Amino acid sequence: MNEERIWTAALVVIGDEILSGRTQDKNVAQIAAWLNVQGIRLAEVRVVSDRTEAIVEAVNSLRARNDYLFTTGGIGPTHDDITVDAIAEALGVAVEFHPQAMTVLERYYATRGGLTEARARMARVPAGAGLIVNKVSGAPGIHVENIFIMAGVPHITAGMLDALTGTLEGGRPVVSKTIGCWVAESEVADLLRDAEKTHAGVAIGSYPFFRDGRTGANFVVCSPDEALVDTCLANLTRALEAAGFAVVAEGI
Amino acid sequence: MNEERIWTAALVVIGDEILSGRTQDKNVAQIAAWLNVQGIRLAEVRVVSDRTEAIVEAVNSLRARNDYLFTTGGIGPTHDDITVDAIAEALGVAVEFHPQAMTVLERYYATRGGLTEARARMARVPAGAGLIVNKVSGAPGIHVENIFIMAGVPHITAGMLDALTGTLEGGRPVVSKTIGCWVAESEVADLLRDAEKTHAGVAIGSYPFFRDGRTGANFVVCSPDEALVDTCLANLTRALEAAGFAVVAEGI
Repeated sequence: MNEERIWTAALVVIGDEILSGRTQDKNVAQIAAWLNVQGIRLAEVRVVSDRTEAIVEAVNSLRARNDYLFTTGGIGPTHDDITVDAIAEALGVAVEFHPQAMTVLERYYATRGGLTEARARMARVPAGAGLIVNKVSGAPGIHVENIFIMAGVPHITAGMLDALTGTLEGGRPVVSKTIGCWVAESEVADLLRDAEKTHAGVAIGSYPFFRDGRTGANFVVCSPDEALVDTCLANLTRALEAAGFAVVAEGI
Repeated sequence: MNEERIWTAALVVIGDEILSGRTQDKNVAQIAAWLNVQGIRLAEVRVVSDRTEAIVEAVNSLRARNDYLFTTGGIGPTHDDITVDAIAEALGVAVEFHPQAMTVLERYYATRGGLTEARARMARVPAGAGLIVNKVSGAPGIHVENIFIMAGVPHITAGMLDALTGTLEGGRPVVSKTIGCWVAESEVADLLRDAEKTHAGVAIGSYPFFRDGRTGANFVVCSPDEALVDTCLANLTRALEAAGFAVVAEGI
């Protein structure tokens, strides 16, 4: 049997501001959703502090066991921006100025006070790297081996993801469809387990919530095979209804 | 010299719903902020999928090198809730029913349709574990060795954190104070670097933003030593003003 190849990515979120609770991360969710459209699964995420050893360890363990590795944060002009140096160290290569990045930055800062030494730091890349276009602000993202080095500011990252859309090899995107019930998930636990077992290749997630004093749950059926998702969803709906629970299509 | 002990924690967020981008995580930020009040630093976070091997690997590598390890997610009654089994496997202990958890669940479900087999799963703990009070819903959290097993639903986790407040040994909380400038951080990069170097023991983070078409940045000065934070903040403010930038106290 020809088993379908699953493409995976990992993400390293670099930043003390996330670990201190000061900043709510938004990159995990946006990169996860974008990757799925490319047919790539986000397999794991690590949030690490602005310390070289922490970044090197995370990058080296994750790049080896995933098709792609993304990082966010730490590519600005200030002293706490150490991502490029840390990734160069992880790869065992030098840091060099990228001529095209210098040109981009010179142009961008021509009307913004000129390219100072601090700003030119943003043209530094691990040796051998290419650039990821940044249409939102000046400094480009960086692509080296299977690593994609992105900004920390979410709308700049979004622009870089746009620039990468369609350029990475992937498989079939995972199709997720949701139904909901005003029921405690514990009442239908057996029924969910059976539905997952009966439809090999789907994963069913159960997500309880409490709203307006009522208990409910959404059930998410996932697989790259949309027909299988639809069959499982139809059978699960029938089983829930047979057990006396009204099903809300597309979730609550 | 008597070096101050730094207490650290790691967090493992367990859940396919975070890795798929379906759900925006809120536990990292709330646990980070809570830990800081306890005098404990959140040193690293991993987000892993609902797979036993992924959970075991993350738990075992992080519990060994941090004072505390927190997990969120995967402790409900359904088939995709495998956190307790995975952590028992990581610790090399059996899973057992906790008598007090059974009592709690029996009482909670007495008026909610009774304690079914699926619901009783939530009384399963790694052998030797204690409970964390859950005042919000029925099922308690779990405490075993240096591991704290919390709910995935953020307001339930918040209740469990309340129950733990003041019970964990920690050091001095990190004090963070912020100032802001309507300036591109690249214009003041040298000045920030110098301020951090001159005040040993502080970390200065620089967080740029773009708002209403203008460029600004907040500068966050952190240390467990509040007097040092204040000195550094005062000197940094003077340096920014001397360079011609108006400083907004408490950030923008």
